[in-house]
Amino acid sequence: MGDNINLNNLPPGFRFYPSDEELVVHFLHRKAALLPCHPDVIPDLHLYPYDPWDLDGKAMGEGKKWYFYSRRTQSRITGSGYWQSIGVEEPIYSSDGQIKVGLKKYSDFYIGEPWEGVKTNWIMHEYRVLSSNSTSKSSSSQRRNSKIVSNKFYNDYSKWVICRVYERDEDDDDGAELSCLDEVYLSLEDLDEISLPN
Amino acid sequence: MGDNINLNNLPPGFRFYPSDEELVVHFLHRKAALLPCHPDVIPDLHLYPYDPWDLDGKAMGEGKKWYFYSRRTQSRITGSGYWQSIGVEEPIYSSDGQIKVGLKKYSDFYIGEPWEGVKTNWIMHEYRVLSSNSTSKSSSSQRRNSKIVSNKFYNDYSKWVICRVYERDEDDDDGAELSCLDEVYLSLEDLDEISLPN
Repeated sequence: MGDNINLNNLPPGFRFYPSDEELVVHFLHRKAALLPCHPDVIPDLHLYPYDPWDLDGKAMGEGKKWYFYSRRTQSRITGSGYWQSIGVEEPIYSSDGQIKVGLKKYSDFYIGEPWEGVKTNWIMHEYRVLSSNSTSKSSSSQRRNSKIVSNKFYNDYSKWVICRVYERDEDDDDGAELSCLDEVYLSLEDLDEISLPN
Repeated sequence: MGDNINLNNLPPGFRFYPSDEELVVHFLHRKAALLPCHPDVIPDLHLYPYDPWDLDGKAMGEGKKWYFYSRRTQSRITGSGYWQSIGVEEPIYSSDGQIKVGLKKYSDFYIGEPWEGVKTNWIMHEYRVLSSNSTSKSSSSQRRNSKIVSNKFYNDYSKWVICRVYERDEDDDDGAELSCLDEVYLSLEDLDEISLPN
């Protein structure tokens, strides 16, 4: 947090609102390659012991979203429940759209015993870099990286993930969230069967 | 633009992403009351002569959204078409939810002769402050303000608007936009009749 940007003192209207590509390329790739991240605002955290509502104060919070680095793991069980993937991994592309740089997985949080819990509104986006043989373009990109990082770090590469956790709140009156609802509202305005709450 | 935040040199992940309340309270109220705005990043612009695709370079752009101050007007005709309200004005509340601070109007841009044009994907959010007799709470808020600004400025108060213009792009792969689609996707996952493009 020793960078020249103070998260607690940003001017009005400015916030941490990273794109998928920035999370993967700037934060996750650099982290995995042991390159410095500026601003170094996202902490390392073991995700799975923590219930999502316990992340406040531990993860990097912006608005009602929490960001942190973690390690890939199959264990998704927390104190009160578990994370369950919705079975979708979305490819993340470089900003020029040419190179697939990572994958984004969506999970829901369930309260209760695995796998019999009750679904909550808590959502996790989990980003990982592509493994070295996932695509030829990715391979060549990683080969370029291998010139500057050793194989030791290279093996580390695919173990890191970066997570965004938030609670979907249908009554949220935060502007940032509302502008998402705007999108929904405007895209659905012709669908009579759906009415959004005022 | 002479503030200590350089819009062209923000760290990765940080951007201008104001909430509705910030636009109204910080930028619009202060503007109308002739108080200094820090950061002073949003220019004044006569909206209606400009087609939305001509705003780049004139309005303050962040991602694919453009922000500017303008004056309230009934004339919404531009060189190539016109803005037409979708007939909704959404109340904007203070962050504590207690005070209604402004209104947000949605408009679509149509190409062609008024009012026979073809609807485009261009969208405008137009924010205005409440007139002094709209609500009692707002009145008391404005009475407080009237202690520090003269009636001359006061009359000016309701003439200013702040506008956000952007083009809704269904194929947008920008992360910021995608996270809006995430919301749609996740909120609609049980609705079989709607399928979103991949």
